[in-house]
Amino acid sequence: MQIGVLGTGMVGQAIASRLVDVGHQVRMGARRADNEMLVKWVDSTGDRASGGTFADAAAFGELVFHCTNGSTALAALTAAGEDNLRGKTLIDVANPVSGKTMPPMLDICNDDSLAERIQRAFPATRVVKTLNTLYCEVMVNPASVPGDHVIFVSGDSFDAKTQASDLLGQFGWPPNCIIDLGDLTTARGTEMYIALYSRLFMRLGTGFFNITISRA
Amino acid sequence: MQIGVLGTGMVGQAIASRLVDVGHQVRMGARRADNEMLVKWVDSTGDRASGGTFADAAAFGELVFHCTNGSTALAALTAAGEDNLRGKTLIDVANPVSGKTMPPMLDICNDDSLAERIQRAFPATRVVKTLNTLYCEVMVNPASVPGDHVIFVSGDSFDAKTQASDLLGQFGWPPNCIIDLGDLTTARGTEMYIALYSRLFMRLGTGFFNITISRA
Repeated sequence: MQIGVLGTGMVGQAIASRLVDVGHQVRMGARRADNEMLVKWVDSTGDRASGGTFADAAAFGELVFHCTNGSTALAALTAAGEDNLRGKTLIDVANPVSGKTMPPMLDICNDDSLAERIQRAFPATRVVKTLNTLYCEVMVNPASVPGDHVIFVSGDSFDAKTQASDLLGQFGWPPNCIIDLGDLTTARGTEMYIALYSRLFMRLGTGFFNITISRA
Repeated sequence: MQIGVLGTGMVGQAIASRLVDVGHQVRMGARRADNEMLVKWVDSTGDRASGGTFADAAAFGELVFHCTNGSTALAALTAAGEDNLRGKTLIDVANPVSGKTMPPMLDICNDDSLAERIQRAFPATRVVKTLNTLYCEVMVNPASVPGDHVIFVSGDSFDAKTQASDLLGQFGWPPNCIIDLGDLTTARGTEMYIALYSRLFMRLGTGFFNITISRA
């Protein structure tokens, strides 16, 4: 499959590299096509990797991952272009965090979410929120943490969530560990979880952890 | 030990009854001593149970549980009386939720927490936040859910957190399942988790669940 990955940071790199590993054609997008991180990633990743602007990556992808910072999300997606995203599934991995403080402060919480803002701005695109509750190495390699730990999926399109879940399966997420929380408003829950996640990160001193749901 | 429990709702009843079960003398407090729920609880619970106003319960307790709604917390604690709470450990179990919607909306999030507001209002009291991440039946009977699921503790006083953890142990929480997240600002993380908790509650259709931390 041809997949666009918007963002060249740790998360974008981890997802783009893993998508190449499992056999996809991946184009990473940045604000500028000569972005140093992007060029380095393309050069070191081999045949199935290419790079370009946000618009290049979005046009290339049959499906697109959004991996820029929450604070730049709408600008990056606007640069990617509404027409290039039209009718496609957009997997939003970002959290609405702008500063670099730890623990982070959320720019949006409670009665809205970054995922919903993106969906409202791009109504012809099918937004799925997932993977935002984890350290990037765990996102793409769930076996790096033991146990039946879980990943959440939120979105208004059942088909788009199925597509996202298929990709999660290719990353190594077992079907029973993928929890469809419901419509896109449920992304408020996973985005706000970053407040607990970050305290756990600081307390445990590692990103290699995740939560498992125990139930009666 | 003599313990005051402020609040007569589901959470207050569950905690007060469990404290009596494990051997404590418990006084439940309400705005009015003739509160119907309170009178019924006292009548049905036996010798170690008594009731009174918020002030009666706070004066009685060597340690006090705060179990009123988040929106009435400061009013209830003011009625309980600064002097009656002075030098004592106050275990705050509430979340900053005022409405009755499901999922709930938080009145405070991100840069403050209910626990911190209470601590600022009662500086001579040692506030510990715990048990606010769970359905009340699981709070007081962790064995009702299988596995090594966890409970969080936040607070600025190490001694107060030790006292709280001792009581959690009496409820049945194993020491390895009690996670001290750090100072009281970490309560922002557990209070904001209610946004994910409530979506899980709705998705799973039961309150008999909790999270386990899996780590590498």
